[in-house]
Amino acid sequence: MSKINTNYQKLPGSYLFSTIAKKVREYKEENPDADIIRLGIGDVTRPLVPAVIEALHKATDEMGQEDTFRGYAPDLGYDFLRNIIAEKDFKARGCDISPDEIFVSDGAKCDCSNIQEIFSTDNKIAVCDPVYPVYVDSNVMAGRTGEYDAASERFKDVIYMPCTSANGFVPELPKEVPDLIYLCFPNNPTGAVISKPELQKWVDYANEHDSIILYDAAYEAFISEENVPHSIYECDGARDCAIEFRSFSKTAGFTGLRLGYTVIPKELTAGGENLWPLWARRHGTKYNGAPYIVQRAGEAVYSDEGRAQIKEVIAYYMGNAKVILDGLKEAGFEVSGGVNAPYIWLKTPDDMTSWEFFDHLLKEANVVGTPGSGFGPSGEHFFRLTAFGSRENTLRAVERIRKL
Amino acid sequence: MSKINTNYQKLPGSYLFSTIAKKVREYKEENPDADIIRLGIGDVTRPLVPAVIEALHKATDEMGQEDTFRGYAPDLGYDFLRNIIAEKDFKARGCDISPDEIFVSDGAKCDCSNIQEIFSTDNKIAVCDPVYPVYVDSNVMAGRTGEYDAASERFKDVIYMPCTSANGFVPELPKEVPDLIYLCFPNNPTGAVISKPELQKWVDYANEHDSIILYDAAYEAFISEENVPHSIYECDGARDCAIEFRSFSKTAGFTGLRLGYTVIPKELTAGGENLWPLWARRHGTKYNGAPYIVQRAGEAVYSDEGRAQIKEVIAYYMGNAKVILDGLKEAGFEVSGGVNAPYIWLKTPDDMTSWEFFDHLLKEANVVGTPGSGFGPSGEHFFRLTAFGSRENTLRAVERIRKL
Repeated sequence: MSKINTNYQKLPGSYLFSTIAKKVREYKEENPDADIIRLGIGDVTRPLVPAVIEALHKATDEMGQEDTFRGYAPDLGYDFLRNIIAEKDFKARGCDISPDEIFVSDGAKCDCSNIQEIFSTDNKIAVCDPVYPVYVDSNVMAGRTGEYDAASERFKDVIYMPCTSANGFVPELPKEVPDLIYLCFPNNPTGAVISKPELQKWVDYANEHDSIILYDAAYEAFISEENVPHSIYECDGARDCAIEFRSFSKTAGFTGLRLGYTVIPKELTAGGENLWPLWARRHGTKYNGAPYIVQRAGEAVYSDEGRAQIKEVIAYYMGNAKVILDGLKEAGFEVSGGVNAPYIWLKTPDDMTSWEFFDHLLKEANVVGTPGSGFGPSGEHFFRLTAFGSRENTLRAVERIRKL
Repeated sequence: MSKINTNYQKLPGSYLFSTIAKKVREYKEENPDADIIRLGIGDVTRPLVPAVIEALHKATDEMGQEDTFRGYAPDLGYDFLRNIIAEKDFKARGCDISPDEIFVSDGAKCDCSNIQEIFSTDNKIAVCDPVYPVYVDSNVMAGRTGEYDAASERFKDVIYMPCTSANGFVPELPKEVPDLIYLCFPNNPTGAVISKPELQKWVDYANEHDSIILYDAAYEAFISEENVPHSIYECDGARDCAIEFRSFSKTAGFTGLRLGYTVIPKELTAGGENLWPLWARRHGTKYNGAPYIVQRAGEAVYSDEGRAQIKEVIAYYMGNAKVILDGLKEAGFEVSGGVNAPYIWLKTPDDMTSWEFFDHLLKEANVVGTPGSGFGPSGEHFFRLTAFGSRENTLRAVERIRKL
């Protein structure tokens, strides 16, 4: 008799953003005239830049001609894309990463959730709290987390590293040593960043304890300040302990186009076993490459034209972040993030729970945000707003919140 | 200390098609002037049809405009695509499948390999022998197969169902009852098909024993004969025991564009637990949707114009199949397949092993095919050729093989 993977039954509730979507849909059904502004899910709203559109059209035409048609992509990505990534994202920042250490994929979410498959289910993970739910949920499904304890809102076998106002939303090195450490900087959901010396401490810790750091740098393009590392490979020794994830979703508005990549240095091992061939094998067996036209679109992001256009889009979103940050500060909110990241992290007023504030904001201001508690227990009494709306909507949303 | 998933170490050799690619690359390096014809990997060669190209351009333009830009796709696919799939692929054939039972993805390979994740690792799988390697390898990685026995070339805990000349390459119902049964018709690699009454027996068997059939119908568009089911849901009771996978790769030349879908009926259960919500949860957590522009391209496949254009392409490939089938028969080969599938399955001459014949063909005829033994022990002494080449190359390849 067939049986299900019962680990799925340990997952509490549904995926955070599905729950939010459902609540908003229901509110909208009851209040069809409500003018709802969505600053909840981290989805971009600006169109793809002209250089990307042009590349898509060109590649599409190639796919329509016999002599330029392309079938299956190379398992790990086209060289034209891997080469330019190695050059522009790493060599240009002094990081020693070669093109064949780059695995092109359909997005960082998939890679972040799939990467755990190449590790033992006995491995213990550590995650920031609050945290992007995908890291935890993918490990729950694989049976790596133990049971969920509803009282503490935590999985028994996961090491949670609280990120609070007190530590500036950068966790302390864990006392119990984890095997796999998920870090995300600039951080989702808090918008916090880590300095290079601080990140170096994590690399040293991981190398000392034979842990692997799974470093999600999906938001690196939003870094505006000096001394904030764009890649973990800016730290000494990171090639011996770190896997890095990158995304075109926020950098270049590819949320609906799907492109990302994972870096695994050739010498990186776990328990003496090389990780590069495992991930290559997983790609070859459980994945079939990102579309050619999308990989060409990704290449265009690195052209002079593309880079200039994308810089403008990021400046636009970071302008929104400033609107939210300044507006909420003036209104007396306790806020952080929003300087090197498109996320603003605010303390809920009047000791409201995160979901109470969600409902309050939806009902009274018709503004949708994301409850901090949805990212973990230490996110309780916090709330995330994103800078990905239009300027007009962002201004209107801030105005409405200030009037509450 | 971090440790790897040691199940990966049970995988013998590398992924079949990577091995072939390596052998061909090496031969090409040693013989740079060799005029190699590739009839090995099942990759298409005809360009995308005009209706699909047009849809890609149109959707690309939408992505470049603020008011028509699309970010994250709905987890399970856009309604415009799910609706037309339900109507044209199922309702039109009398199958009762609703749009919300269709999960759009980036391809059947990913779905076929990921589907096992929602089942218990205790579940025992049955596969045809020979078989598309992805079914087995993905289960090896998950720890569902036990150790590999090099002598028998089989995994200890997998039920192999031999497909041989004697049974017309359609397996017998297994004596030991499996929990999960992988079936693929029209078959890769043998090109064999199953009749509707025969498939009904499998559905009845699965319902009787509470097994789940994982039905890969990636090649259904190539069916040319009557009484060959295009979908398992043409059988009574299939909604209670079957998941079906479909692909745009071969149907519409999307190998480099990536689009497929999985059907899970709402009432389908394993051990009393519903499967639909598990796959939906997996999609929501470990996947992020197929690109909007690719889903629009998929929609175009179902337009009157698109269907007519695609029919021509399939006729072209099946013309190639006939060239191979007739040519090899005349040359005295024992051949099958190639009538309802783009694959021709031939017995190697002179009792050569599959890999001996591979080397022989590569060296003496500069033709690349796929060794039958790469698909499983019962594939030994067989060889797969595909109809996906150009007509010219197919004619030349057959001519060369006849001269051997």
